[in-house]
Amino acid sequence: MGEVIRIHEVGLRDGLQNEAAFVPTDEKVRLAGMLADAGLTRIELTSFVSPRWIPQLADAAMVAEQAPRVPGVRYSALVPNLRGLEGAKAAGLDAVAIFLSASEAHSKKNINKSIAEALEVLEEVARAAKAEGMWVRGYVSTVFGCPYEGAVDPAVPVRIVERLFDVGIDEVSLGDTIGVANPRQVRDIVGRLQAILPLDRIALHMHDTRGTALANVLAGLDLGVTIFDSAFGGLGGCPYAPGASGNLATEDLVYMLEGMGYETGVDLEKLILASEHVAELVSRTLPSKVLQSELGKRIKDRDRAARSR
Amino acid sequence: MGEVIRIHEVGLRDGLQNEAAFVPTDEKVRLAGMLADAGLTRIELTSFVSPRWIPQLADAAMVAEQAPRVPGVRYSALVPNLRGLEGAKAAGLDAVAIFLSASEAHSKKNINKSIAEALEVLEEVARAAKAEGMWVRGYVSTVFGCPYEGAVDPAVPVRIVERLFDVGIDEVSLGDTIGVANPRQVRDIVGRLQAILPLDRIALHMHDTRGTALANVLAGLDLGVTIFDSAFGGLGGCPYAPGASGNLATEDLVYMLEGMGYETGVDLEKLILASEHVAELVSRTLPSKVLQSELGKRIKDRDRAARSR
Repeated sequence: MGEVIRIHEVGLRDGLQNEAAFVPTDEKVRLAGMLADAGLTRIELTSFVSPRWIPQLADAAMVAEQAPRVPGVRYSALVPNLRGLEGAKAAGLDAVAIFLSASEAHSKKNINKSIAEALEVLEEVARAAKAEGMWVRGYVSTVFGCPYEGAVDPAVPVRIVERLFDVGIDEVSLGDTIGVANPRQVRDIVGRLQAILPLDRIALHMHDTRGTALANVLAGLDLGVTIFDSAFGGLGGCPYAPGASGNLATEDLVYMLEGMGYETGVDLEKLILASEHVAELVSRTLPSKVLQSELGKRIKDRDRAARSR
Repeated sequence: MGEVIRIHEVGLRDGLQNEAAFVPTDEKVRLAGMLADAGLTRIELTSFVSPRWIPQLADAAMVAEQAPRVPGVRYSALVPNLRGLEGAKAAGLDAVAIFLSASEAHSKKNINKSIAEALEVLEEVARAAKAEGMWVRGYVSTVFGCPYEGAVDPAVPVRIVERLFDVGIDEVSLGDTIGVANPRQVRDIVGRLQAILPLDRIALHMHDTRGTALANVLAGLDLGVTIFDSAFGGLGGCPYAPGASGNLATEDLVYMLEGMGYETGVDLEKLILASEHVAELVSRTLPSKVLQSELGKRIKDRDRAARSR
């Protein structure tokens, strides 16, 4: 038996919020069930934010209420504030995620707060969630680079991670929001964290915008990171760039990890069924390379069968 | 100054031979010049094989004759036999590449010879080329997996590499022909070779069919490999799978290496110009993620400029 790697599936949240199409509520609920059936045990369902911000996830409460409960599967939702936390709780969730940026410019642009202001709100939400006995994850975005500031001083995300753990949250995910990270940066930041924290509470959330996501995962794996975020099919991407990628595809992550002897618990064939289904719903080819090569193989086999008839 | 990494550009050969479109000779010549201008110093131009096998490269002699000679740039061509070697020499090339498979089934299917039979021909060609003072590269394909046999015993490619160096060739490139390799395999094979050979004569030729190419490159880099093959734009791919990838894109490789502080000598902007041009010639979106994100950014900037008018 290989070492167990935990995959945090963010397609229904971080994926769908970046797709132009609105996926109907019953389909989101069905997809949650398909992902659980494929062996994913951490599924981020939606985001309790204002529908004005993210209309694609305006049905957060219904999705969270209706997603089929499966033993061993933890559903979570993103919550920006106490109101979001209340929504998630009312919908029957016992796990939430809070988020902030490691770049002042990105924080201002994204939520109109400085990092210090954002941390205050987050700490309030985190304390309230922990008081309710909930599992709490923190996302730190733009850890490896910012679309407005460029380079980000690695000391900043490290300080933020420490602050978040001080409030008692369970896990922190480090995000390469715009997909600019390289393995040397991953080694730098993970190395700094390793010196001060237990690494089994650190996740890496790599985007594949420039093709480097799995190399960055490998850099983290080598240092002992065991939690990685990804989106089935590579759902999400850059809405303005046809074919361009955002989230690392769960298929590609599982393919590499299983090939290396790690245990993910994910059934790749079942996962591909979910990705094929969501690709129809968002009406586009999804960027996962494993998915594309699998679909290509099928076309080839079908052509071959047709010729031999 | 960072460590120098040598990129072996195979787009005009391994890329174009897998594209459906025939790129006109004068455009191939122009592209060779653009690649040299972008700072690539090892450019594989074409293949001296029968036009019945690879009609896309039927103009091998003309391309090799006309490609603009640039000081410091080594042009090479693939040659399957003595006749191909003669063709390359007559066209004024002083570098050639020979190839064989690490899988018996693939060797039989591909060239209708066993590995042992293929080695005999290759050794003859390699000796003749070395006698002419040429630079000779050997490609070993299906090193990490075979489309017919599946797993490949790593001892086989290692023995083949030893045989090739015994004949006096200059460099061997290990190919993940169908893009199934994972970093653990790369570490295994490179580790075995490292024990018996100077690693500065070993190249890795990773395909990105399942998104693992850069992770595999990282595994090689960490062990001390300094030569990597790639194709500009990610040219090539699986002709039967729209959007699916074959060759690792040179842009993606350069992006990661330069970000990590290695020196490639490649000007990414100039390289992207060559990729944009060839994308028009083959009439498809190329899979390079750096290329796609760059084009996406331009679309976004143009839209923004249009709105602000």
